[in-house]
Amino acid sequence: MALAMDRNALHVFLAREFPQVVDIFRVEAVEERRIRVRHIIDERHLRPGGTVSGPTMFGVADVGVYLAILAMIGPKALAVTTNCSIDFMRKPAAGADLICETELLKLGRVLAVGDCRIFSDGHDALVARATLTYSIPPER
Amino acid sequence: MALAMDRNALHVFLAREFPQVVDIFRVEAVEERRIRVRHIIDERHLRPGGTVSGPTMFGVADVGVYLAILAMIGPKALAVTTNCSIDFMRKPAAGADLICETELLKLGRVLAVGDCRIFSDGHDALVARATLTYSIPPER
Amino acid sequence: MALAMDRNALHVFLAREFPQVVDIFRVEAVEERRIRVRHIIDERHLRPGGTVSGPTMFGVADVGVYLAILAMIGPKALAVTTNCSIDFMRKPAAGADLICETELLKLGRVLAVGDCRIFSDGHDALVARATLTYSIPPER
Amino acid sequence: MALAMDRNALHVFLAREFPQVVDIFRVEAVEERRIRVRHIIDERHLRPGGTVSGPTMFGVADVGVYLAILAMIGPKALAVTTNCSIDFMRKPAAGADLICETELLKLGRVLAVGDCRIFSDGHDALVARATLTYSIPPER
Repeated sequence: MALAMDRNALHVFLAREFPQVVDIFRVEAVEERRIRVRHIIDERHLRPGGTVSGPTMFGVADVGVYLAILAMIGPKALAVTTNCSIDFMRKPAAGADLICETELLKLGRVLAVGDCRIFSDGHDALVARATLTYSIPPER
Repeated sequence: MALAMDRNALHVFLAREFPQVVDIFRVEAVEERRIRVRHIIDERHLRPGGTVSGPTMFGVADVGVYLAILAMIGPKALAVTTNCSIDFMRKPAAGADLICETELLKLGRVLAVGDCRIFSDGHDALVARATLTYSIPPER
Repeated sequence: MALAMDRNALHVFLAREFPQVVDIFRVEAVEERRIRVRHIIDERHLRPGGTVSGPTMFGVADVGVYLAILAMIGPKALAVTTNCSIDFMRKPAAGADLICETELLKLGRVLAVGDCRIFSDGHDALVARATLTYSIPPER
Repeated sequence: MALAMDRNALHVFLAREFPQVVDIFRVEAVEERRIRVRHIIDERHLRPGGTVSGPTMFGVADVGVYLAILAMIGPKALAVTTNCSIDFMRKPAAGADLICETELLKLGRVLAVGDCRIFSDGHDALVARATLTYSIPPER
């Protein structure tokens, strides 16, 4: 199955629709039902001691699942997050970018579910995992 | 039971430990096992269309449970979030502050669990709910 | 707003559609968006030491939210659980029935979200909390 | 690293500690941090129409993570579930056993986190996914 949007199309979409975050997210690889997204970390994303904040980890998972859905169904849908469960397993490495590996477990007509594993760039140990559900509104 | 930290002590703690967020969170009320926290919204927290971002909603729940724990046990603990489940129910009102009502459901020796209900300031309808678990490290 | 199904109608529905569980669940009270359900505990629901099993606690939350939805929209819908997050806070009292207090936080056209608090009958301390999402299929 | 308990030791443990469920769970394979468990389905686990019940799916995930922990740390620990998030993705095949593939994502001194993927035996499509946290009490 062909992707509805490739890496370049996803970047163009982000730049147009979410200009305030386009400089911090970068699609590293995308294939059917899988995407790898980098969250570039700067001081806005850090807590005292240099650790990456919880909302930042939530944010990269949210974007990862969103882009994985768009890659499959195209830019037309106004998908919204309805649910997230996230487990924080280890402290992220100080100042390292986050790498989020997302797999779409379900892509239904109404709901999509994606599973994320989040790492500090250059480290093997899992920092966090998350599962998110998106609601896909019917087309008019 | 007396609180270990009142509203003023929590603000002083935030200013010292988390200077980068002290201007956006305000404790509105705190009592035994309950706290109400305001997240002041500015353009950094908005998505296109003026809606408050998901990470922002995660962030106020995370801070709400953290401060509810500190109010009970004092500033000495290095509690860390281990788990969060969050349900997004309605779109937040454009540009309104978030109000997060937190209740501690469990405050054990090792784990604490808090439940949050998040509203747009001045609106009755629930925007999101979240439950967070914090791990409380043993004192040395 | 009138309920689409009252306590008696819910019991009749359970007896017809779920005969294998009708003897273990009892609606204690139902009102708009709220329901209290008793799970009668027998030895099938116990673990060694007399404690109520985790699947039993999941089960009463699942039934609580389901019946809360049916009370509002009537018996015609084939709602299915899509997501559950559950926190186990304390060991249930040995051999006591479970009481599950459910509140519907959202009742949309497509998704409903219910929040549950589970107690051992006759005890004040919360045993578990759960949030469940149901998907409500469109009517044909 | 050697396993603290192999397949046979896990079955002996289940038979001694959980005699009421030993006939329904079978360890199919176990290795470091991974286990595959079969839940043998009989009519007690079915809902009308022959579908496997939600509590049954919760149950196999709960047992899967528990046994994965015991395989690593041995039978001495009284680990208890503190949290579960579960997503139900597809209706299980009527009457087929459940197969639960568990991976331990974290095995800390105090908390362990396991990730489960649940299938109907003989089918490729994912029926459900779950993440569970266990609290591991300190040894006395």
